[in-house]
Amino acid sequence: MALILITLMVILAAGPTWSAPSIIQMRSEKKTLLATDELYCSSWRFTVETNDAGAWTRVPVRCVDFLKDYITGDLYAAELEAVAANAAEYARAIGISGDGRDAWVFDIDETLLSNVPYYAGHGFGSETFNARAFNEWVELAEAPAIAPGLRLYKELQELGFTVFLLTGRDEYQRHATERNLMYAGFNNWEKLILRGKADDGTPATVYKSAKRKEIEDAGYIIHGSSGDQWSDLIGFAVARRSFKLPNPLYYVA
Amino acid sequence: MALILITLMVILAAGPTWSAPSIIQMRSEKKTLLATDELYCSSWRFTVETNDAGAWTRVPVRCVDFLKDYITGDLYAAELEAVAANAAEYARAIGISGDGRDAWVFDIDETLLSNVPYYAGHGFGSETFNARAFNEWVELAEAPAIAPGLRLYKELQELGFTVFLLTGRDEYQRHATERNLMYAGFNNWEKLILRGKADDGTPATVYKSAKRKEIEDAGYIIHGSSGDQWSDLIGFAVARRSFKLPNPLYYVA
Repeated sequence: MALILITLMVILAAGPTWSAPSIIQMRSEKKTLLATDELYCSSWRFTVETNDAGAWTRVPVRCVDFLKDYITGDLYAAELEAVAANAAEYARAIGISGDGRDAWVFDIDETLLSNVPYYAGHGFGSETFNARAFNEWVELAEAPAIAPGLRLYKELQELGFTVFLLTGRDEYQRHATERNLMYAGFNNWEKLILRGKADDGTPATVYKSAKRKEIEDAGYIIHGSSGDQWSDLIGFAVARRSFKLPNPLYYVA
Repeated sequence: MALILITLMVILAAGPTWSAPSIIQMRSEKKTLLATDELYCSSWRFTVETNDAGAWTRVPVRCVDFLKDYITGDLYAAELEAVAANAAEYARAIGISGDGRDAWVFDIDETLLSNVPYYAGHGFGSETFNARAFNEWVELAEAPAIAPGLRLYKELQELGFTVFLLTGRDEYQRHATERNLMYAGFNNWEKLILRGKADDGTPATVYKSAKRKEIEDAGYIIHGSSGDQWSDLIGFAVARRSFKLPNPLYYVA
């Protein structure tokens, strides 16, 4: 009763052009919004990209078509561009010293290289992750560049940043990874950091934080970090600014 | 040239159903994606919600209609529901001790109470923030409840959580804030924390972290925190899980 009164008061106070508060309340109370796939899957994507969803293992089955349309359509590409534009704008404004100590840390998969061709053949994230099949794909070294990532990478180097590549891929995949990066147009990174034996079983957030800490301890300032997973960006030794790229295909803890 | 080769190789390798890598690359290279308002504004919203955009002062003029449709439409309401569902699922699984020390921290504006009626009359975030006009709106104490926020609030209390309200509103707005909360259906919070004189000029992230620290120092475990701004959630004395609600109308540093 109090809610209805409030809603009425707001409508009266706000004038004839405004009626959303009642919509927000009444539609939500019916709990029907998440019944449509479009709204359910759009909202699911929101919760995944903000990390509200926490750990998840598979794209909901009802969202497979939605995800396919998104990831092969204009919106995913536009979001990648928008995030790269944010990063470039920030990087240009820093005014770095030029002594080589100004660093940027990039993740690789879904940040510089796209595994969408692989996931297109594996249910767009709706299937259980198949490590063997994915590692075979990595060995092919055919992942295309994410174009806005490549442009950002090159611009950062022109601005004088030292680029570190920090990936959850294993040390045994170093050669294939280097080959793929070069084929896709990436060059002159300072260091490519992969998971060694000692990092086995360490959660990505801890592994990546520890490696960033080593970079800092070597005298670098990590101005920026780009990654498609929150575990690329949070933890300790965090970059001054972090840039979260979209990725609703999989989650890395 | 290498990129074109790679793209061709991928298309050939992936078979006839897959062509997105070339789309991602070629469309992006033309830099036309962000030329359409729909894609520009959707992407802008992504960068704002992930905090990639960093500090911003106003909604882009070209996105006012987009934002109005979003915030008065089903998607905003669906996202609010989805985030509340994430929080509720997490809270139910905790298995709290029942000694009253298990806490949840809520922000107020755009988390429990909606100021959308105010912003509807002020250009949906496209106008410079008018503190005087907004404070008059606060004094009216007519902000409606965000329905999924109210349901979550009540469920958490039923589960046995102690609820803290931590807002950037000023101490002099305590009475109006309490009145508004009660009208909208919120009751039995443990403590309503507003900005006092000593907090004047402190960035929200620091102010809110310090207040969370005080809650922890008083012996509470902050299991969860809900807020529409990253500054509600990050910093220090961070909750075990944080829930970022959508808000593309304004940014609080």
